[in-house]
Amino acid sequence: MKTHELIAELREKNDTKIVLMVMDGLGGLPLEVGGKTELETARTPNLDRCAQQGTTGLSIPVLPGITPGSGPGHLALFGYDPLEHRIGRGILEALGINFKVGSKDLAVRGNFCTIDNHGNITDRRAGRPTNERCVAMCEKLKKIRIPEVEVFVEPVREHRFVVVFRGDNLGDQINDTDPQAVGVPPLIAEGKDPHSVTSAKIINEFVSQAKTILQNDAPTNQVTLRGFAKYPKIETMEQVYGLRSAAIAVYPMYKGLARLVGMDVLDAGNTLQDQITTLKKVWNQHDFFFFHFKYTDSTGEDGNFPAKVEMIEKFDKIIPEVLALNPDVLIVTGDHSTPSKMKSHSWHPVPTLIRSDLCRPDRVAEFNESACLSGGLGQFSAQHLMLLAMAHAGRLGKYGA
Amino acid sequence: MKTHELIAELREKNDTKIVLMVMDGLGGLPLEVGGKTELETARTPNLDRCAQQGTTGLSIPVLPGITPGSGPGHLALFGYDPLEHRIGRGILEALGINFKVGSKDLAVRGNFCTIDNHGNITDRRAGRPTNERCVAMCEKLKKIRIPEVEVFVEPVREHRFVVVFRGDNLGDQINDTDPQAVGVPPLIAEGKDPHSVTSAKIINEFVSQAKTILQNDAPTNQVTLRGFAKYPKIETMEQVYGLRSAAIAVYPMYKGLARLVGMDVLDAGNTLQDQITTLKKVWNQHDFFFFHFKYTDSTGEDGNFPAKVEMIEKFDKIIPEVLALNPDVLIVTGDHSTPSKMKSHSWHPVPTLIRSDLCRPDRVAEFNESACLSGGLGQFSAQHLMLLAMAHAGRLGKYGA
Repeated sequence: MKTHELIAELREKNDTKIVLMVMDGLGGLPLEVGGKTELETARTPNLDRCAQQGTTGLSIPVLPGITPGSGPGHLALFGYDPLEHRIGRGILEALGINFKVGSKDLAVRGNFCTIDNHGNITDRRAGRPTNERCVAMCEKLKKIRIPEVEVFVEPVREHRFVVVFRGDNLGDQINDTDPQAVGVPPLIAEGKDPHSVTSAKIINEFVSQAKTILQNDAPTNQVTLRGFAKYPKIETMEQVYGLRSAAIAVYPMYKGLARLVGMDVLDAGNTLQDQITTLKKVWNQHDFFFFHFKYTDSTGEDGNFPAKVEMIEKFDKIIPEVLALNPDVLIVTGDHSTPSKMKSHSWHPVPTLIRSDLCRPDRVAEFNESACLSGGLGQFSAQHLMLLAMAHAGRLGKYGA
Repeated sequence: MKTHELIAELREKNDTKIVLMVMDGLGGLPLEVGGKTELETARTPNLDRCAQQGTTGLSIPVLPGITPGSGPGHLALFGYDPLEHRIGRGILEALGINFKVGSKDLAVRGNFCTIDNHGNITDRRAGRPTNERCVAMCEKLKKIRIPEVEVFVEPVREHRFVVVFRGDNLGDQINDTDPQAVGVPPLIAEGKDPHSVTSAKIINEFVSQAKTILQNDAPTNQVTLRGFAKYPKIETMEQVYGLRSAAIAVYPMYKGLARLVGMDVLDAGNTLQDQITTLKKVWNQHDFFFFHFKYTDSTGEDGNFPAKVEMIEKFDKIIPEVLALNPDVLIVTGDHSTPSKMKSHSWHPVPTLIRSDLCRPDRVAEFNESACLSGGLGQFSAQHLMLLAMAHAGRLGKYGA
């Protein structure tokens, strides 16, 4: 029996509130032998108190040793198997610019490139145009019309943009048209199944019209397309858990991931304090709140250990305002580790705490990697976190008599 | 998505070196209440230092409570699901005598037995003949010729030998001809699927010819056959991980298991020092080194606690020579536990350490069962060990964007 079927059978409604706070890329590594991680270095009295009051552990996002991207990392936290549900590159790119992709959409990442008189690519990134030029060229491409589908073209930055084709029965089993080489023309799109064959014709028509429109715009005089992806079929949080869910995130990508699983995506401003204000405002309207904080990841990616420590401490300071709302279940975790030492996402398990009246206490009184190793949750699959959230919220009945 | 498909998608090449050192049957039990295990008793300064520098934990070979044989124990360490990939008794027996079984082979274990004038078995082990007689009788059986297949007969010891049938489309869904009883004749082989039906005829012809050849050789005047097994279809380590892998083992069975997953099986001499010499010699030619040490298991099987302690200490002494090669990832573990107290393999989780620059440190500074309980790897499935090895070696890219 699949976990979601089990939940559907056991779930119960009540008026409890669950808050899932995600410090992106939370887990870290010491810089030196015998040193401390970012979280071990940070002064986090509020998180430490939550750890003491609640139960702690380390979550494994996908599998031991597997480093997740933001998509799989968050799907796992929301209780979806990230190896079953895959979010293609095109869809993620669209989510990242806050384009509201939906079930009829085929999305793809586009690159402006330069071609010579023979149609061969001479620069795959069109000399990295300015963002302004990217916007201007996308405006031109918005004039493309193709029968039976709506076409959306949106700038990302420099040579990058997103194309979304909206229509019935589109397929995404289509090769990239980017040949990943210069001196050759863009590849012709070909589909691997009947729907994708039809869609490939649409793609080729798009590229053909783009070439005509851009013919006098060298170096941005042609486009290549990479990572065709249909909007994934995925149940909503409401369907799986019966939870009215809200996302309180600042970055478009995480808003997009939340929308993908049917959360209400709120306008949460730009700062942690804006997010807290939003949380307070909508407290009575939802059961579940996904609260996302990006800067623990971005400072980690930058390899900036002290800045990551600072971001953790900044996050710690808002915890009392969340506790003042008296959530029935508060979870603090990350979607993966991003050690400053590695300047990248990593596979290392992620410190996690659950605070609720029904927690079985452990002896952990600090929130960090080494303390959580002794925690009551042990090391567990991040996919099981929502089961624990639902249980501690009294929202899961007994299985079997 | 299966783990091996995931690895195929994520794996990256680089020039890192991974060493997997297996102390066979490493885990143990105290002899008395309040006592120490073999590993806790042994003086292991080098392994303790590795544990301190790296991350430790306990690996579960198959499932909690499941005692593995050498085949499943090693398959799990190599990252193959031992419940999916089964190595039949006949193939294991052939591997154990260093017979180079291949994809067209059907292997089976043979026993010399004694039959009376009516063809009924009077002794299932033919009075346990000497090894010399076993060899001599096998020489006779080598004369057997059967159309369409090559037949190989090789002695093991006493009443035991191996038969390998090599041909196209052989099947192994065939009953044992050993009735596991005296006073009755050997059973007729019958196949359960078309290929096995054809193979069963070949088997019965073999037994019939053997009876004729051995008719004047009582007490070794007939044979029974047990554990028909086709060579398993299994991807190689190179196919799964992209690793050029070498096995540095002394015992034939472990060389055979390594050959099964496509490792280069080296002539590694007879002693630990020979093995180290081999490791140094081939260091630049491979990415992955499987280093096997048998005597922790055999002393455990003998119920010889002090001898197992001594073997562990002997193994500890060679660790500096391995570290001198500066492996990017060093793993020390066992394929299962073999407590001297039980004189057999057991299900108890196996102490495991990983030492690499990317380990997240834990507070463990000793390598043994009770210390590893607090380790950063927690208790984990042995099948995930290779994922961790690949991750720490920088050989696995990010999953999803």
